Amino acid sequence: MSTRQDSTVADVGTSKAAARIRAAAIEIFAAKGYGATSTRQIAASLDLSPGAVYPHYKTKESLLFAVSLEGHNAALVNLRAADEPTSLPTVRLTSAVTAYVKWHAHHHSQARVVQYELRSLSAEHFKTIAIIRRETTKVFTDIIRAGNETGEFQTIDTDAASLAITALGVDVSRWFPSSTYSDPEVLAERYVELALRMVGVAP
Amino acid sequence: MSTRQDSTVADVGTSKAAARIRAAAIEIFAAKGYGATSTRQIAASLDLSPGAVYPHYKTKESLLFAVSLEGHNAALVNLRAADEPTSLPTVRLTSAVTAYVKWHAHHHSQARVVQYELRSLSAEHFKTIAIIRRETTKVFTDIIRAGNETGEFQTIDTDAASLAITALGVDVSRWFPSSTYSDPEVLAERYVELALRMVGVAP
Repeated sequence: MSTRQDSTVADVGTSKAAARIRAAAIEIFAAKGYGATSTRQIAASLDLSPGAVYPHYKTKESLLFAVSLEGHNAALVNLRAADEPTSLPTVRLTSAVTAYVKWHAHHHSQARVVQYELRSLSAEHFKTIAIIRRETTKVFTDIIRAGNETGEFQTIDTDAASLAITALGVDVSRWFPSSTYSDPEVLAERYVELALRMVGVAP
Repeated sequence: MSTRQDSTVADVGTSKAAARIRAAAIEIFAAKGYGATSTRQIAASLDLSPGAVYPHYKTKESLLFAVSLEGHNAALVNLRAADEPTSLPTVRLTSAVTAYVKWHAHHHSQARVVQYELRSLSAEHFKTIAIIRRETTKVFTDIIRAGNETGEFQTIDTDAASLAITALGVDVSRWFPSSTYSDPEVLAERYVELALRMVGVAP
């Protein structure tokens, strides 16, 4: 085991066994809620003894933190990969909203745990996640500011537009899929149109 | 006790004692999650014996249903009261978005339980709640259609705009209040601007 307990990578757990435990935790947390789940149940779902989880995650909260850290990092990495800062702001916003909406649709169980169980994290762990969340919002804020500066966008309030665009993406994990929207690609197209409208780009 | 067990009003529980139990349930469900809460804990928070809940709610699920029914009905009644169908669509959308956003900000604990614990309802109870949810979305859809017809709105996709406007309102209960937005009135103003943009009204 790594001795770098201060490192976020070490906290997530890089072994295959730890990854299997996190994947099982996501399924059970998403289905039953974090509070209703025990590490014993997570172990049992993998045919492991309760003690087998302990070397990887000492507490249920540390497992939630690992899942949250991994999920938030994945969403942010995915979003940043979609954003090409040298492109036109309209292209950037299209690409970023598409990536963010599709990530929440494709990973809706993981996203639901990651977005809706934050209150169960320790204060210290919450702070770490809050930093990643601010970085995520900042991707959208930076694109909107760039568009305001070039005159491509006519945003009324940049903070509100960033919040709303992020909120639409997050909220996808609450309900996806529905009878009307079950194709992430189609949903992303509709939300891109609405996001462009929000920053004042005419269709 | 009422014998009209088929009635949704009877299901909610109209007595003062039942209302106190629902209020306590909302606080504990919102803080710990439905799955992690027992009716025993809810009773204890009111200095009641576990048996005192039973005459009002036979199961924890029936208590969640009562809370969900009451919350969804309250949000819908509040939204409908804000909508005056003889007004201009822009006025109607402004008023409806304001009411919906403010309701989710003012009642964020209740809204969180009502919006995020639906998976724990029985199939039959979920169906009842789904009807109220469709009625809620329909208020927005009707306003947007009216605006499209008069030419006041230039909506690209009415279903998507309804979904997004409803989603923004619901999502408020996930995070409200934040360091940037803690005044429901200010948040509602920003979201009205964005909703009008979404349906193609220039500021």
